Amino acid sequence: MREDRRADELRPVSIDTAFNRYAEGSALISFGHTRVLCTASVEEKQPPFLRGTGKGWVTAEYGMLPRATHTRGSREAAHGKQGGRTVEIQRLIGRSLRAVVNLEALGPRSISLDCDVLQADGGTRTAAITGSWVALRIAINKLLAGGTLAADPMIGQVAAVSCGFVDGIALLDLQYCEDSKAAMDANFIMTPDGGVIEVQATAEDKPLHWDQFMQLKQLADKGIRDLAALQLQAASI
Amino acid sequence: MREDRRADELRPVSIDTAFNRYAEGSALISFGHTRVLCTASVEEKQPPFLRGTGKGWVTAEYGMLPRATHTRGSREAAHGKQGGRTVEIQRLIGRSLRAVVNLEALGPRSISLDCDVLQADGGTRTAAITGSWVALRIAINKLLAGGTLAADPMIGQVAAVSCGFVDGIALLDLQYCEDSKAAMDANFIMTPDGGVIEVQATAEDKPLHWDQFMQLKQLADKGIRDLAALQLQAASI
Amino acid sequence: MREDRRADELRPVSIDTAFNRYAEGSALISFGHTRVLCTASVEEKQPPFLRGTGKGWVTAEYGMLPRATHTRGSREAAHGKQGGRTVEIQRLIGRSLRAVVNLEALGPRSISLDCDVLQADGGTRTAAITGSWVALRIAINKLLAGGTLAADPMIGQVAAVSCGFVDGIALLDLQYCEDSKAAMDANFIMTPDGGVIEVQATAEDKPLHWDQFMQLKQLADKGIRDLAALQLQAASI
Amino acid sequence: MREDRRADELRPVSIDTAFNRYAEGSALISFGHTRVLCTASVEEKQPPFLRGTGKGWVTAEYGMLPRATHTRGSREAAHGKQGGRTVEIQRLIGRSLRAVVNLEALGPRSISLDCDVLQADGGTRTAAITGSWVALRIAINKLLAGGTLAADPMIGQVAAVSCGFVDGIALLDLQYCEDSKAAMDANFIMTPDGGVIEVQATAEDKPLHWDQFMQLKQLADKGIRDLAALQLQAASI
Amino acid sequence: MREDRRADELRPVSIDTAFNRYAEGSALISFGHTRVLCTASVEEKQPPFLRGTGKGWVTAEYGMLPRATHTRGSREAAHGKQGGRTVEIQRLIGRSLRAVVNLEALGPRSISLDCDVLQADGGTRTAAITGSWVALRIAINKLLAGGTLAADPMIGQVAAVSCGFVDGIALLDLQYCEDSKAAMDANFIMTPDGGVIEVQATAEDKPLHWDQFMQLKQLADKGIRDLAALQLQAASI
Amino acid sequence: MREDRRADELRPVSIDTAFNRYAEGSALISFGHTRVLCTASVEEKQPPFLRGTGKGWVTAEYGMLPRATHTRGSREAAHGKQGGRTVEIQRLIGRSLRAVVNLEALGPRSISLDCDVLQADGGTRTAAITGSWVALRIAINKLLAGGTLAADPMIGQVAAVSCGFVDGIALLDLQYCEDSKAAMDANFIMTPDGGVIEVQATAEDKPLHWDQFMQLKQLADKGIRDLAALQLQAASI
Repeated sequence: MREDRRADELRPVSIDTAFNRYAEGSALISFGHTRVLCTASVEEKQPPFLRGTGKGWVTAEYGMLPRATHTRGSREAAHGKQGGRTVEIQRLIGRSLRAVVNLEALGPRSISLDCDVLQADGGTRTAAITGSWVALRIAINKLLAGGTLAADPMIGQVAAVSCGFVDGIALLDLQYCEDSKAAMDANFIMTPDGGVIEVQATAEDKPLHWDQFMQLKQLADKGIRDLAALQLQAASI
Repeated sequence: MREDRRADELRPVSIDTAFNRYAEGSALISFGHTRVLCTASVEEKQPPFLRGTGKGWVTAEYGMLPRATHTRGSREAAHGKQGGRTVEIQRLIGRSLRAVVNLEALGPRSISLDCDVLQADGGTRTAAITGSWVALRIAINKLLAGGTLAADPMIGQVAAVSCGFVDGIALLDLQYCEDSKAAMDANFIMTPDGGVIEVQATAEDKPLHWDQFMQLKQLADKGIRDLAALQLQAASI
Repeated sequence: MREDRRADELRPVSIDTAFNRYAEGSALISFGHTRVLCTASVEEKQPPFLRGTGKGWVTAEYGMLPRATHTRGSREAAHGKQGGRTVEIQRLIGRSLRAVVNLEALGPRSISLDCDVLQADGGTRTAAITGSWVALRIAINKLLAGGTLAADPMIGQVAAVSCGFVDGIALLDLQYCEDSKAAMDANFIMTPDGGVIEVQATAEDKPLHWDQFMQLKQLADKGIRDLAALQLQAASI
Repeated sequence: MREDRRADELRPVSIDTAFNRYAEGSALISFGHTRVLCTASVEEKQPPFLRGTGKGWVTAEYGMLPRATHTRGSREAAHGKQGGRTVEIQRLIGRSLRAVVNLEALGPRSISLDCDVLQADGGTRTAAITGSWVALRIAINKLLAGGTLAADPMIGQVAAVSCGFVDGIALLDLQYCEDSKAAMDANFIMTPDGGVIEVQATAEDKPLHWDQFMQLKQLADKGIRDLAALQLQAASI
Repeated sequence: MREDRRADELRPVSIDTAFNRYAEGSALISFGHTRVLCTASVEEKQPPFLRGTGKGWVTAEYGMLPRATHTRGSREAAHGKQGGRTVEIQRLIGRSLRAVVNLEALGPRSISLDCDVLQADGGTRTAAITGSWVALRIAINKLLAGGTLAADPMIGQVAAVSCGFVDGIALLDLQYCEDSKAAMDANFIMTPDGGVIEVQATAEDKPLHWDQFMQLKQLADKGIRDLAALQLQAASI
Repeated sequence: MREDRRADELRPVSIDTAFNRYAEGSALISFGHTRVLCTASVEEKQPPFLRGTGKGWVTAEYGMLPRATHTRGSREAAHGKQGGRTVEIQRLIGRSLRAVVNLEALGPRSISLDCDVLQADGGTRTAAITGSWVALRIAINKLLAGGTLAADPMIGQVAAVSCGFVDGIALLDLQYCEDSKAAMDANFIMTPDGGVIEVQATAEDKPLHWDQFMQLKQLADKGIRDLAALQLQAASI
């Protein structure tokens, strides 16, 4: 049983939007000991595959500092390529954020979300998505305030949270020691009003029943609402 | 509306287990025009991270021939690295198959599943998972028949199918022209009796309602049952 | 001594031009158990080094599925580069086919020949060249039929066959178990009327006499004529 | 002329040794807006080239977050290799720290210093070296306290500072806007008592006189002393 | 017509075995303006695939300095991989030299032949093979003289020369301006007494008649005999 | 103590400007047994980052033949990347030469300096810089003589030499056996009249006193003057 929080409770969440002074938008987000720096960088150019259209693009890259974890991992840049897990996560972040942006309305520019994990204690991808929305919101606010954009291209809000079954109990927002022994790990990327943007659920050792999956969905609804409120508060600063 | 099949109907599925004469197990699986060659290769050695344990491993690699598609794609080997989509898919195949194998019971050996798409018309990852189970089942049958294994390490059956909303209608087993305009694309990797191994759902343009996701789940249940019957038939030859 | 065919006899050869539905031309060619899928993809653009000229280009890429062979080989895309043998073979295929195409008459477009070995039992490079000519012939026929080309840029026909000395006997079209113990392995890439496009002969353990090489040439003449007839038959469908 | 500090004055320097909770030693060091996270990771294994000796090793890796700078730089891991500047800097950090460690006394283990630039405003390599000494000192203190080491292998203290000529004036600790127009950029890696560990001086547009170089050396002596005092204070916590 | 030599004449050939002072054997060989430095390096270890056998190995690597040619080529090390032409040539050199060495008699060691083109005017691969034999002969002589080897593992001599048809005339030892307009380019790797080790002939624009190929073979016989005499002279110093 | 030269004496230096017949400028420079081939290649195009300006660029690449050294090193092109030492050295060469060229006056063209070490006995980077100046001077002389340039863009002369402390004695121009046991290794890149272009000094085992560094500077002054005279003599041919 969890000692310091209820099964349906998030870890303490904080969002610092002033840690980086150069990015158009940024958020240093913490889910407990997990700490991810998310920056949104606006560039006035389109990716090659959109040339000739008026559309913009939102993309994401993800990385982890070698000693973000209990034991040192290898540095991907030194190794010469990004691992499969990194590729999978950064594609997920990009898809999730694009789902709440009208790319035509964004116009012929690109926004890159860089999510760098400074410390990892489970849930880095969900923290990255949740923080990236804040960074993106701030960056787009600047484009609106500066007159680069006349109308808001953001069509929604998105947050993400993990849930899982540990020792037969459904838990919200797994930390590493829980995640490593979970029978199912599910990530919910949703809107505050319960809209589905992406859902990924993976059984670890053996298949799970569908009603167990539905229990996790219940927890996620609550977690997403809580995170969404914190996002709005951080972005409005 | 679909002209040649109902919304809840699979495309014609065929599974040929004799196409490759060298692999311990193989299945050339077709979902309509999608055609994936799945081979299972047994090697009597463990991956480095399992040395010193008695456990085995099941892993997967995925590839697509350059002209499997309407227009030629670049050859990943010539390009010097596997793309993000490839990495994501092969990790999914590996996880899905490991979920139905007892790795301790498999003993100190590795089974590699190679899934090569000879022709692609949507649903290549679900065809790959469904065919891989057949190839794996045949390979393990050989290990049992030859006395290398005394007890069956396979603890279940797994099949996969895609579902999606196209023009407001929930469809089973999307082909390419449907997939490319789907509002949500979901892949269900499940057991014949409805157990969940992996679920991935992605909204394309805007968030979807949860009850829409549930409609897709209904379709998937039917599709998985149909595929599972075909797998058993193919593997028993 | 060969049990099932004479020393100057090819293995059973089949050419299926309908296996792939997307490529402009294709041929699934079998030399006994060796099976290579050759596709010809036409793209209406020139390679960079021909910009500013009116010339076209024909190029080739070669690959082998990991389990095309008795024991699994590593996947070149996963490994991050093409091996030396692959590079050597795909350059040979490209040179051989360019020798029978008038590149000025082809005009400012590229044709890529992809040769993927689905199963390997010796002679994959000769099967690839022989099948590629069929795929190329069909693709160019389509350009002529569709009016993209007014005159035929193909100036000849090319086929390829291997020969070798095994236990002192000159053999045509080596299969793997013969090839692996051959004292000399020679590949002849020729026209039906005996014109030389490329010849490569390699002694394995010790130098051979020139008259031995000439015996192999005699066998090749016959093999090329037989293959050329089968090519014409396949391409005319 | 500098507005906010004297020509021979450092920027405000802070060293936080509690930012990372997993590394054996760490220091988040700031030189003004430049902010580098330095972690020291101890591993009980030798690099391959020291096998068979009793010696240990100290090495360093350096990286910069894509949006550490005014405009976004590319992510080296995504690009597939470390740039020349990165390679040069991480080799410098490694040499500098090894110069104050007795590798025999360290015994058969490795310490990796990871220096990740979270924000860059000039002087990232000097901040990295100065912070790495703190992280290393703390990590070795833990090895001593835990009994892994009986005697201290550290034989000295090292700090680093940059100096340069801007508009004819010698300045200590250049920030980016100064560095980018400096006629000479010199980095001094020294001990508190003036011992030389590494000196690198580069004239930008035209050669400089030796006595100008000597002026920079004077500034560096002062800067090193100030930094060394801050290092001791941080490491003693 | 050639101005300075007959059609069946080699360019001036020189072989300097003292250019490199470190290698066990070396030869700086010139075919006219083509100049290749060949070194033979002996290492007392086997390649991984020979472990457990008593056999040795001979391998080759080939490179060209960026400005060996009229216009600068890119540096392969900077580019990150060896080009297809390089790979093809170094595999040819290795095969050719292994054909004259008894690998069992060589014992459990490796000899690496490095062929670096300092200046290129056609025929670099044939110069490399011819020079490598000299370097290898000298290196093995040292192993014999030093008592490492009791019996000579070299079972023959090998030299190489190119021939081609230019403007309808068969020429021996093509220089660059001839090679670039040759209708057929053939490389003969042979023993002094006419034994065939490797033959590669490529028609450039259209197929050639077999009797043209035979004319080239006649020229090659003469060239090989001349080169073989020069090799013996150089290696005996 | 040195047997064959005084502590403040260079090794025999020779500069051959006729070794390469294709480059616009070249110098085969020897410092004792160290031998580096430096070529200057002029290309009438700018690097991408200078497009739109009228400026030119001077860059350098460095390489070492595998058997330039006592034992064979791996070939960087085969390995797939340049090592850290190579990258560091070629950046140093490029910076050093750019410091004596007015890039505006050079106009919209690039000069590549290729420094390939044919034999290495210490001091390869200082030989490379010293020889590169000669190659560059000759190449620019040709541009001036041919009328491509109206005014000389070279604004100075640069040479380089190493110095170090070995067994307590300051030595000029270290050869390998000295360099490998030096307590400090310093490279001085200077103008003949004592101007500083780049200085790099590294203590090996423990920090050195500043006055020891100053002793090395004294030796360097003499060495640079001697080298500068030899450069002028070589370039004037």
